[in-house]
Amino acid sequence: MPHHAPMRIPAIPALDLTARAAAQARQDILTKPRGSLARLEHLAVQLASITGKTHPTVARKCVIVMAADHGVVEEGVSLYPSEVTAQMLGNFVRGGAAINVLARHAGARVTVINAGARAPVPALAGASFPPGAPLRAVDAPIAPGTANIARGPAMSRDRAEAAITLGLRTVEDESGAGLDLVATGDMGIGNTTAAAAVTAALTGITPRRAAGRGTGIGGDAFERKIGVIERALATNAPDPSDPIDVARKVGGLEIAALAGVIIGAAARRIPVVLDGFISGAAALIACGLAPEAAGYLIASHESAEPGHALILARLGLAPLLQLGLRLGEGTGAALAFHLVEAACRLHSEMATFSEAGVSEEEQ
Amino acid sequence: MPHHAPMRIPAIPALDLTARAAAQARQDILTKPRGSLARLEHLAVQLASITGKTHPTVARKCVIVMAADHGVVEEGVSLYPSEVTAQMLGNFVRGGAAINVLARHAGARVTVINAGARAPVPALAGASFPPGAPLRAVDAPIAPGTANIARGPAMSRDRAEAAITLGLRTVEDESGAGLDLVATGDMGIGNTTAAAAVTAALTGITPRRAAGRGTGIGGDAFERKIGVIERALATNAPDPSDPIDVARKVGGLEIAALAGVIIGAAARRIPVVLDGFISGAAALIACGLAPEAAGYLIASHESAEPGHALILARLGLAPLLQLGLRLGEGTGAALAFHLVEAACRLHSEMATFSEAGVSEEEQ
Repeated sequence: MPHHAPMRIPAIPALDLTARAAAQARQDILTKPRGSLARLEHLAVQLASITGKTHPTVARKCVIVMAADHGVVEEGVSLYPSEVTAQMLGNFVRGGAAINVLARHAGARVTVINAGARAPVPALAGASFPPGAPLRAVDAPIAPGTANIARGPAMSRDRAEAAITLGLRTVEDESGAGLDLVATGDMGIGNTTAAAAVTAALTGITPRRAAGRGTGIGGDAFERKIGVIERALATNAPDPSDPIDVARKVGGLEIAALAGVIIGAAARRIPVVLDGFISGAAALIACGLAPEAAGYLIASHESAEPGHALILARLGLAPLLQLGLRLGEGTGAALAFHLVEAACRLHSEMATFSEAGVSEEEQ
Repeated sequence: MPHHAPMRIPAIPALDLTARAAAQARQDILTKPRGSLARLEHLAVQLASITGKTHPTVARKCVIVMAADHGVVEEGVSLYPSEVTAQMLGNFVRGGAAINVLARHAGARVTVINAGARAPVPALAGASFPPGAPLRAVDAPIAPGTANIARGPAMSRDRAEAAITLGLRTVEDESGAGLDLVATGDMGIGNTTAAAAVTAALTGITPRRAAGRGTGIGGDAFERKIGVIERALATNAPDPSDPIDVARKVGGLEIAALAGVIIGAAARRIPVVLDGFISGAAALIACGLAPEAAGYLIASHESAEPGHALILARLGLAPLLQLGLRLGEGTGAALAFHLVEAACRLHSEMATFSEAGVSEEEQ
């Protein structure tokens, strides 16, 4: 086999501690008891440290939804057939899916990328959607889904790297059109199985703790799913010190592509709002490749998938929302856009004690 | 003393179970795994049952902020002097407070009522703000704050009833201008002490469990605050079976007024988004007077005040947000408007499986 040069991962800039300190100083003179806006204060200060701006704004927001299929579905790990991935891509393009509604509500763009659906997506054929459009869809399949991880690697290393590169390129395109805040979203029947395998491989937790009910499988199917993840890990022996090896052996095309989105955004000082479990598995890969990316992440919500809380703890992230969501598509992240924007607006628009003529704390 | 006729509390209509069932049936055919939007599905179904509409909308939203002072501040229970209540009323009118920013962000109106600040509010004098205006302020003080509850009753029964009536009338005015969703907000230096006393009186929990750090007091002041609440309960002996007696003896003018807002909204089938601890104490009073009001409530967030979680449990409510907020003003409620509106938009705008040509669950 030919030996490949290691993939080039973009450098992540250091957080701006000067902007961070200036933002914290401003928070402390706004007309509220110090610290009383809690997580919203932390968000504003984090965004200052990411962007280097003492008054960060998030006017231009985009949810990037990566979609792909999973060969492991043939093991009976999902309630839905693989065709639903391509069907849902059509639903995204027509604006009828949950993420379309929530992005409209948040004033955000949606960019949907077919990174590897098994079935063709007629709605994407010949469509032309430029970066920056309110709804953009791109047909860029790297392969018609992955192979069954219970029997062998999901994909070649070349394909995993191509998927990461697809994510990097997507952020580059969106950034060129103007981008202040990006969210990661996913679509892929079977992808909670792959995400659980990635999580188990990279964190060392057991498949039983990493796995959940996905779209809503019953007890027998859940036990089967755990067994499938155990076999995937035993058969493939992914190397936890090599995140691309984990992605290619037990991951998925959309998971690897989302890792690329995360790294690409951090490299451009763009804050990343993570959705749920699939995005969390992608973040584990991204932070394995570029640990400095962790400072650019915002955890939108804690998914109903139990492995997700373990990922967030590993990444040192606290979720903004706990609504029991388990849909994916970037839905939790799109909901959190409102909170991130609220934090920025409070930071910029609230009056200070001296501006408002309000007495400060008594000593 | 003259004997007064008991105050007339408006009747609360029953929830609409037909609309509720129709909304649940629609949720089950939208393009997502059944139940995967969790709390957002429950919200849409609750709003259908409240409004009687199978496709509820929340276009016209208002945060009602009731402000008043507390004589108990002379016991040293707050970091801030009472003058801050009137100063913050000025800040609200000029649009510089946190609630102004968050209401603008949510596309909601703000109505600020001076229910009893100790100091005059020059910014309110002669101001004319009609119901329905994006920012409305009304100078309607019932008294210049309450008396010190550590030494006697906060106010007369007449004043407590006048405050409840002020809340009822405020909702009536806003409803006349068009109102689909209302939030409760508060401003009043010292009001976490009164809210803790109300909570202890109505639920039977101890002052130590009901009390918190308010605007951020230290350990010594916290012990003093607990002692003050204990004295308030011992001195006044409020009757837990008579919510107006509790409100008048250990409550506050803004707390009683918010109870009126809650009852008035429920009586008109308008869903109520509760803010934090002060709104929670008002909800205990409201649901004591009109238990059916509980079905009309949405808990926006869980405050950093420890008594708030106990109130929510007592009311059978689960918070949508847990951001560590402890500001009041309706800030948590205004943030939750986005989630309630998201739930309604998902319910109305998502495609069904048949509309989208997406396969349903396999049997």
